[in-house]
Amino acid sequence: MTELKGYLQQIKGPDNTAIELAQARLDNLAKPPGSLGELEAIAAKLAGISGQMHYDTTKRCVIIMASDNGVVEEGVALAPQGVTYAHTLNFTTGITGVNVLAKQFNTDLIVVDMGINGEISHPMVINRKIRNGTHNIATGAAMSQDEALKAVLTGVKTAIEAVEKGYKLLGAGEMGIGNTTTTAAVLCALTGIKPEEAAGKGAGLSDETYRHKIHVITKALELNKPNPEDPLDVLAKVGGFDIAAMAGVFIGGAVMGVPVVIDGFISIVAALAAARFNPLIKNFMFASHASAEQGYVHASNALGLKPCLHLNMRLGEGSGCPIMFAVIDAACAILKNMGTFEQGNIDKEYTEAVANEDFHIRGL
Amino acid sequence: MTELKGYLQQIKGPDNTAIELAQARLDNLAKPPGSLGELEAIAAKLAGISGQMHYDTTKRCVIIMASDNGVVEEGVALAPQGVTYAHTLNFTTGITGVNVLAKQFNTDLIVVDMGINGEISHPMVINRKIRNGTHNIATGAAMSQDEALKAVLTGVKTAIEAVEKGYKLLGAGEMGIGNTTTTAAVLCALTGIKPEEAAGKGAGLSDETYRHKIHVITKALELNKPNPEDPLDVLAKVGGFDIAAMAGVFIGGAVMGVPVVIDGFISIVAALAAARFNPLIKNFMFASHASAEQGYVHASNALGLKPCLHLNMRLGEGSGCPIMFAVIDAACAILKNMGTFEQGNIDKEYTEAVANEDFHIRGL
Repeated sequence: MTELKGYLQQIKGPDNTAIELAQARLDNLAKPPGSLGELEAIAAKLAGISGQMHYDTTKRCVIIMASDNGVVEEGVALAPQGVTYAHTLNFTTGITGVNVLAKQFNTDLIVVDMGINGEISHPMVINRKIRNGTHNIATGAAMSQDEALKAVLTGVKTAIEAVEKGYKLLGAGEMGIGNTTTTAAVLCALTGIKPEEAAGKGAGLSDETYRHKIHVITKALELNKPNPEDPLDVLAKVGGFDIAAMAGVFIGGAVMGVPVVIDGFISIVAALAAARFNPLIKNFMFASHASAEQGYVHASNALGLKPCLHLNMRLGEGSGCPIMFAVIDAACAILKNMGTFEQGNIDKEYTEAVANEDFHIRGL
Repeated sequence: MTELKGYLQQIKGPDNTAIELAQARLDNLAKPPGSLGELEAIAAKLAGISGQMHYDTTKRCVIIMASDNGVVEEGVALAPQGVTYAHTLNFTTGITGVNVLAKQFNTDLIVVDMGINGEISHPMVINRKIRNGTHNIATGAAMSQDEALKAVLTGVKTAIEAVEKGYKLLGAGEMGIGNTTTTAAVLCALTGIKPEEAAGKGAGLSDETYRHKIHVITKALELNKPNPEDPLDVLAKVGGFDIAAMAGVFIGGAVMGVPVVIDGFISIVAALAAARFNPLIKNFMFASHASAEQGYVHASNALGLKPCLHLNMRLGEGSGCPIMFAVIDAACAILKNMGTFEQGNIDKEYTEAVANEDFHIRGL
C-alpha cells in the first residue's frame, strides 16, 4: 500500500488562478456570457488541471485494459469467455469500434493484457498479465488484496508511462467478457444501491438471464462482504483486473496532472472507485457519453459528473472517449481562437451589459 | 405559392432499401447488435436520405440567416439591434463562436443578409435582403404573406445553390437580435403551448424583462391570430425573415436529398415549421444539441427528434452544427470502416447469438 499511498499523496487540487484567468477570457469573448455552456466549463476545467490557459490536446490515447472475469462460469454473459482474447487481438487489426473512432479523431490506442485467459503474443498488446482471469465472485473473492493492489498500480504506471511518452489527454476503456456483472457488484458495494438498479442487460441478455445476473451479483455481495469504505477491498472482492487497472489509470492521470476521459458504465465505476481513493482525482476526469447500461446514471450521480453525449451506446472498448476528445478540442478552440468583444466591435463587455441591460456597438 | 408547392411536391420519402442494406451491414459488424446506439441510427438514416450505403460528408457548411426583428422596440432583447449588423460582419473576420467551431470541424459558412437593419457590403455576406427588418409583432404582422413566401423561397434556393456547389451536409443557423421572442411566438402558434413555456431568458434577461417578453409574445399572438394549420401564416404574422429563411433551408435540403442539421432553439422551431409544410422533410433533419433555451424541448418533442449533444449552449449562429457534423462523421466511419464478425474471427453473427445465447470464436 505504501507505493499507492505515495501516488495518492502526490495529487494536487486544481490551479484556481489558471481557472480564473481562463474564465476571465471566456467572459470577454464576443458572445453572451456562459452561452457556450459546457464548452466553457470544459475549457476552464482543463486550465485548472494543466495550470495553462491553452492546453494542447493533440496527442491523446485510449488505454484499453483487457482481462477475463471468472464470474462468466455463472452464465451471466452472452458471449463466451474466448471473445475477450479474440477481440483484444482485433484491436491490433483496426477493425473494432474503438479503432475506427480513434482513427477518426486522431487518437492512439494502448492495449494492455491485464489477465486474459490465453496467451497473446503481439507487439501491440502490452503484457501486464496478473493471472489468466479472476476467480468467480459468486464463489469467493475475485482476487487477493495483493493482486488488486498490483492491478491498480499497473493502471497508475501505464498512465504515467503514457504521459511520459507525450500523451496529454487519456481515455480509459476495457475489454472483458463478464465485466458488466463485476462492475455492477462494485457499484453496489461503493454506493449501496441494489443489484437490480446497478445491473443492465449487457450485450443483450434475455429477461431470464438478466434475473440470473442480478441473483449472481446479490450472492457475490453477500458472500464477499466488500467494505464500502475501502475501494481496494471492493475491487479485490467483487471487481476484476480490468476495472481495477482502469481505476489506476484515473489515479495515474491525476498524479501526472493530465485529464482522463471516462467511457461508459465500466469506466465510470472505475472512475468512482478512483475518486474513493482520493476525491481530488475527480477534478481530472471528464464524463463523455451516457451509457445505455442502466447503472451508468447511478455512478454518474455518485461521482457528480454529467456526460455531454447522449448516444445510447453500450459497446465499451473506450469507444466513447475519442468522440469526447472532439468535444474537448472544440472547447480548447473556443478559448484559444474566438475574438473578444473589442475585436468584435462591441464596445462594452457583455458582462457589464448583463448588469446594465444595455451595451453599445462601436463605430455604427 | 405555386413555386413553393412545386418544391414541396418534389420531396421524396426515405430510401428504405438503402436503410435495410445499411442496417444489415451494421448488424454484421463486430459488436453486439445496436451497441453503437445513435451512431448506428444516424448511419442508417443517412443511407435513407442519400440512397447510398456510404455517404461522403466531407464538404459541409452552415447557412447563417441574419435579419433584424422589429419586436426589439418592445425592449425584449438585452443587446441593441445594431449587434445583428456588427456580429454579421464578425462572421467575415473569423472571430465568432461558429467561425471557430466551423474551422475546427472543416465546415464552411454561408452568411446571408435576409433583412439586417443597415447596409452591409461585404463579399462574404450574400445580400438577399427583403427589407431592413420586420415590423414589431406586438403591434401587427411581422411581414406580409408575400414577404414570408419570398423569405422561405430564399432559404430553399440558398440550400439548393449550396448543394449545387457540392455541399453534402448543411446546417441551419441564424443571427438576429430579438429572434428568441419571435421564435417563441412561432412555437406557441404551431404547438399551442403557452408563452411562459416557449420563452427563455435569451442572452441573459432579468426576471422583470423576462416577464415583459412573455407579455409581448402573448400580445403578439392575440393581436395577429396566426393560423396554426398554416405555417406560412404563422411565419408571416409572428416570425421573422431569419426563421422563415431557415425553414426554407430545411425544405431546400429535402428537395435536394441532402441532410440538414438543426442548431438550437430558433433552428429547431424553423425545422418544425418546415415539417408542417411537408412532414417528409423530417426524414432529412438531424437534431444536434439540446439548447439551454427552455422552449427547445417542446419543439424537439413536437418534431420527434432528440439531440445527441447536451452542452447547455444558447449562442445560436449555427454553432452547434459543426460539433454534430463530427458525430455524423463518426457514424459514417463506423459503417464504412468497422470490420465484420467474420473479419473479427467470431464465427456466428451476434444477431443469431442474441437469439441462441451462444456463439463461438473461430480458430481458438
